[in-house]
Amino acid sequence: MFNQITIIGPGLLGTSLGMAIKAKDLAKKINVWARRPEVREACRRTDWCDADHSEIPEAVKGSDFVVVCTPVRHIKAVLAKIAKVASSGCVVTDVGSVKGAICQAADKVFTASKATFVGSHPMAGSEKAGMENASPGLFDERPCFVTSGKDISVESLELVSNFWQAIGMSVTITTPNEHDEIVAHLSHLPHALASGLCHLLGKKSPTWGKLAGQGLRDTTRIASGNPQLWEEIFLLNRESLLLALQSFEETCGLLREALHTKNDSEIRSWLNAGKEYRDELKRPKDT
Amino acid sequence: MFNQITIIGPGLLGTSLGMAIKAKDLAKKINVWARRPEVREACRRTDWCDADHSEIPEAVKGSDFVVVCTPVRHIKAVLAKIAKVASSGCVVTDVGSVKGAICQAADKVFTASKATFVGSHPMAGSEKAGMENASPGLFDERPCFVTSGKDISVESLELVSNFWQAIGMSVTITTPNEHDEIVAHLSHLPHALASGLCHLLGKKSPTWGKLAGQGLRDTTRIASGNPQLWEEIFLLNRESLLLALQSFEETCGLLREALHTKNDSEIRSWLNAGKEYRDELKRPKDT
Repeated sequence: MFNQITIIGPGLLGTSLGMAIKAKDLAKKINVWARRPEVREACRRTDWCDADHSEIPEAVKGSDFVVVCTPVRHIKAVLAKIAKVASSGCVVTDVGSVKGAICQAADKVFTASKATFVGSHPMAGSEKAGMENASPGLFDERPCFVTSGKDISVESLELVSNFWQAIGMSVTITTPNEHDEIVAHLSHLPHALASGLCHLLGKKSPTWGKLAGQGLRDTTRIASGNPQLWEEIFLLNRESLLLALQSFEETCGLLREALHTKNDSEIRSWLNAGKEYRDELKRPKDT
Repeated sequence: MFNQITIIGPGLLGTSLGMAIKAKDLAKKINVWARRPEVREACRRTDWCDADHSEIPEAVKGSDFVVVCTPVRHIKAVLAKIAKVASSGCVVTDVGSVKGAICQAADKVFTASKATFVGSHPMAGSEKAGMENASPGLFDERPCFVTSGKDISVESLELVSNFWQAIGMSVTITTPNEHDEIVAHLSHLPHALASGLCHLLGKKSPTWGKLAGQGLRDTTRIASGNPQLWEEIFLLNRESLLLALQSFEETCGLLREALHTKNDSEIRSWLNAGKEYRDELKRPKDT
């Protein structure tokens, strides 16, 4: 499919992607850029990495596809560097979980570039970060966003969509802003609620801990995620997240009002609406 | 331990309790009261039920221990009937997940009774209700509240606590109001948040459903619970739940303020507080 792919940042996602590209034979050569020497050294010991680099221009040279897999806070700066040096015809994408801010920055730096940028957000991952937890099956049957824009050609959009489909993902095309609204509700809001609940419970008596049941554990599992990573995601997607938080408080306001007025049928229908949604949620990994 | 135990309402909890009492040999005879003939019929086919009854006076006659396992909405009425007919020395308890309202009602009806009431809340259960899902191991190593009160003797409190410990549970003694504050935070608030999140998402585009990840599924699993059961719990514990909801909104208000002012260190420490609590949460069944 590709002559040469460059993976920028071989963490959990970047390494899993390298393994999957190799396993599915999607590139003749796989280049890697990593900042730390020990990570480059680890890459050299794998069977999927053909060349490792410490400088972005060398890592990107001659590649027809580049995937930026660094933490979100570095993506804009990395894209600015790639835009200057990528070859004509090269398509660049990323795996950032926020798209509006990243695609806006990318639009600016790629206007003068020979290469094209198309934003992606493969919704795969794990609480266990790092290349040691990587797996070529990480992306299997998981959803992936690819973002459209007025300067993005149908060909580039198809190329990036086809890539993620070849990796095993189910692709959805949206605008960057639609993407941010959706993930604010499906991912960032749930994270904020789980974290907020734990934050509140942390202020209560420590003796309460042993009384927690499985329901509380399930509801709050994601609050164990990396605070630095989530701080960055929250800030990059702050406007959509603030709107989602406001909608959530309005929804809870309906319950509070019904409790105040002891309106049993209103409480029941509020709970029923939640159950209906949850029961219909597709659950590939659920029991 | 007991001469005769009566189980009122052989649903998931009542049936599991009958099995556990039999397995641990805690009573010479186990009586059951069930409203529906087909449930009494099903009880007759088990090896733990020695006698089944359709009337409470007959079911309770001669018992030294009675456990009320009906849905919470029926507990008060059932206790009023038992108080009139239970023998001298008989100790009565329940499994209701709200204690203030139940214990207050019980205090009134047991003042003139020969028997004594002590409230319990064994925190065991499952989304799968009914006697067909019962298991004698349902209570193993799970927490159980036993509630104290000014009219409750140390002997009665110990008898009930010892019973739940013999069943395999880890007992905590609190006042009914303390119990209600704790479960409002550890159980009813998480349920309201999961349900509210699903309620909100249910109003969004149905196409979003296939984009949901495992995080959202875990966070909202409990929203599939029985709306009628939870409506009753919410109403019986409305004051504590309203306070917990208010505290939660204040906690979320801290995040909203930090997002509005782009205060990265405040967002980070808010998330850190949540992670610290979650990481310390004991997790017997967690990975």
